[in-house]
Amino acid sequence: MEIAHPYLLFLGDVHDALAAKTAIGIVDWRKDWCLGQVRLDGCAADTGLPDVSIVEGASKGAKTMVIGAVNAGGRLPDHWITSIVEALDAGLDVASGLHVRLASIDAIREAAERNGKALHDVRHNSETFATGKGTKRTGKRILTVGTDCSVGKKYTALAMDKAMNDRGFSSSFCATGQTGVFISGRGIALDAVVADFIAGAAEWLSPDSEENHWQVVEGQGSLFHPSFAGVSMGLLHGSQPDAFIVCHEPTRTKMRGVETPLPTIRQVIDMTIQCGKLTNPDIQCIGIAVNTAALDEDEAWAYLAKIGEEFGLPATDPVRFGIDVMVDKISAEYGAP
Amino acid sequence: MEIAHPYLLFLGDVHDALAAKTAIGIVDWRKDWCLGQVRLDGCAADTGLPDVSIVEGASKGAKTMVIGAVNAGGRLPDHWITSIVEALDAGLDVASGLHVRLASIDAIREAAERNGKALHDVRHNSETFATGKGTKRTGKRILTVGTDCSVGKKYTALAMDKAMNDRGFSSSFCATGQTGVFISGRGIALDAVVADFIAGAAEWLSPDSEENHWQVVEGQGSLFHPSFAGVSMGLLHGSQPDAFIVCHEPTRTKMRGVETPLPTIRQVIDMTIQCGKLTNPDIQCIGIAVNTAALDEDEAWAYLAKIGEEFGLPATDPVRFGIDVMVDKISAEYGAP
Repeated sequence: MEIAHPYLLFLGDVHDALAAKTAIGIVDWRKDWCLGQVRLDGCAADTGLPDVSIVEGASKGAKTMVIGAVNAGGRLPDHWITSIVEALDAGLDVASGLHVRLASIDAIREAAERNGKALHDVRHNSETFATGKGTKRTGKRILTVGTDCSVGKKYTALAMDKAMNDRGFSSSFCATGQTGVFISGRGIALDAVVADFIAGAAEWLSPDSEENHWQVVEGQGSLFHPSFAGVSMGLLHGSQPDAFIVCHEPTRTKMRGVETPLPTIRQVIDMTIQCGKLTNPDIQCIGIAVNTAALDEDEAWAYLAKIGEEFGLPATDPVRFGIDVMVDKISAEYGAP
Repeated sequence: MEIAHPYLLFLGDVHDALAAKTAIGIVDWRKDWCLGQVRLDGCAADTGLPDVSIVEGASKGAKTMVIGAVNAGGRLPDHWITSIVEALDAGLDVASGLHVRLASIDAIREAAERNGKALHDVRHNSETFATGKGTKRTGKRILTVGTDCSVGKKYTALAMDKAMNDRGFSSSFCATGQTGVFISGRGIALDAVVADFIAGAAEWLSPDSEENHWQVVEGQGSLFHPSFAGVSMGLLHGSQPDAFIVCHEPTRTKMRGVETPLPTIRQVIDMTIQCGKLTNPDIQCIGIAVNTAALDEDEAWAYLAKIGEEFGLPATDPVRFGIDVMVDKISAEYGAP
C-alpha cells in the first residue's frame, strides 16, 4: 500500500482532541507531508494546520484526504460520507483508518470509480497470517505498553526509534495501528486482524533480524482494558519484546471509553512481565513514558522524579523532555551501538 | 443460521483424532443427528459412525455435509474441494468451521449455485459487535478455561450445562467455537471475530439474564498459549464469569502446535483470577476437569484425588466420571436451584 502525499487531514466534527489522534500523530511526525486540515461545524479538535476546504486543498496540490479522526467503534457517520465523496470528486484519493471499508459504501465506491481515484483502507490488508508460533527470533525488540489506550504508546515508539537511529543504533519502527501505518508507509492495523491470528500477525511484523538490530514495536491497548486486552496480549506474545516501556497519563482515573479504573504502573509492569515471559523469558521494563500534558513543568519534573525513584527506571515525557534517558538505558543494559 | 440435519461428517485425511475434534464433538452430543462419516485415504481419525460414501449418505437422507476436521491454520486443502463439490452435486448443503469462506472458492460456489444448495460458514457471521464495555451484567456465568487448547473446554461446558439443567438449574450453553455452534445451533466462532471486538462479542454472547440463570460459556485456547492467548483474554473479560472450571490433560508436556511447555493448573487458576477480576471481582475457580483418557481407571482416580486435595476443589473427568461434583459445588457456593 502506497499512500500519496501531500495529505489533507479530515477531522470531521469530533468532540475532543483524542478522537483526532490519527491526524495529530501524522502532523507530529510528517508535518511536511500535510497541507491542511478539513473541519466540519462543531469540530473540537485542532492539529494546528491551516483550515482549508476540500476544493481549496485539492487546488493547492493535495493528493490524498486522510480520515484523521475516529468515532467510538470506528464507525463512519453518514454526514462524513458527503465530504469523502466531495474529496473524490475534487480529484483526491481517500485513505481511512476506520474499521468500515470505504468501498463498502455505495456512494463512496461510485465516486472513486467515477473519478478513477484510490481508496486506501489502512485497517484492512490482503496479507494472510499464520497462527503465532511463540519461538524465539533473532534480533532485539522493544514494545511500548500502557496503563490505558491513548497514553502515548505510538509516540513513544516513534520517538525511541528516531532517538536510537540518531544515536547510531540500527533500529526500525513497526506500526500496529492506522496512524503508525500512515506515518511509516507500512505495517498492520493489528486490531483489525482476525482474533486467531493476532500473535501470528505480530510475529510477521517483527521477523528475524540482525542480532544487533532493534525493532521498536508500537503497542496497542492495555492488558487492563476490558475492551482491548486481547489485542494487547496477542501483540505482547507475538512481538516477544526484550525490553518494554510503560506509557502512562497520571491524571486519568478511568480507562478510555469504559468505567474501569486505571491500573497502576506497578500492575502493568508485573502483568507484562508475567505474560511476556511466555515468549521471552528475559523480558524487562526499561523505562516509563509519562504524558505530562496536564501538569505544569514543575509538577511534571516532580512526578517524573518520583516515578523514576519508585521504580529505579528512567522516567520521562518523550514529547516534553525527549527520550534520551531510555536510549541510555538500552546502551547500559544491552550495549552501545 | 439454521443447519439442516441429518449430517454427514467429513473427516478428510487428517493425521490424528484431535484434528477431527469438531466431528467427534458433534457425535458426542448429537449422535442422533449424524448419519455417517466420510473419510479419505490415509485418514487417522474415526468418530465410530459408519463409513459411507457421499452419494450413499445422500441417498440415505443426509441433508448437510459438515466439514468436521480441520488443518493447522484452518486452511482447506485442494483435494477436499473435490469432495465438497461432490456433496453439493449429490444434493447436500455443506457446513464448514474453517476460516476460509466456502463461497470464496470458485468451484464450490459454482457447485452450490448449480444445485441450489446452501453453504454455511460457521466461523463467519453477519452480526456486528460493539467494543467491550466491561460493565457488570445481571445473571450468573461459568467459563471453562484451559492449560492448553483441545483439553475439553467445550465438552466440560456442554456437560455442565446438561447436568445443571438435569438438576433443576436454569442454564444455557453459549457456543464460542464451530463445533459448539453445530451442536447448539447458535453462537459465535469467537476466534474469527476481528480482534478489536473479541470482548464485545463475548459480551453479546452472554447478555443480561435472570438473576438465577446460569450461562455456561465455552472457553477457547489458553491464557498461556502463544498463538491464542489474546482470544482467551478477550473471552475472559467479555464473559465476566462468576465461576470458572480449569480443563487439563495431565500427560501433555507441550502446548498444542507449538514448543511452549504446558503451564501448571495453579498458574492457570492464578492468572485467570488476576485477569478476570477486571470485569468480575468475585471470580473464583469451582473445579478442575481432567481429560484422563491416557490413564487407566486406577491412575485416573488417583490423579483426580491428588488434584482435588491439592486445590481443595472438585476434580473429575466429565467424560469418564460425570460432572455432578461440580454442580454440587455450584449449589454450595451460590445456592441450590
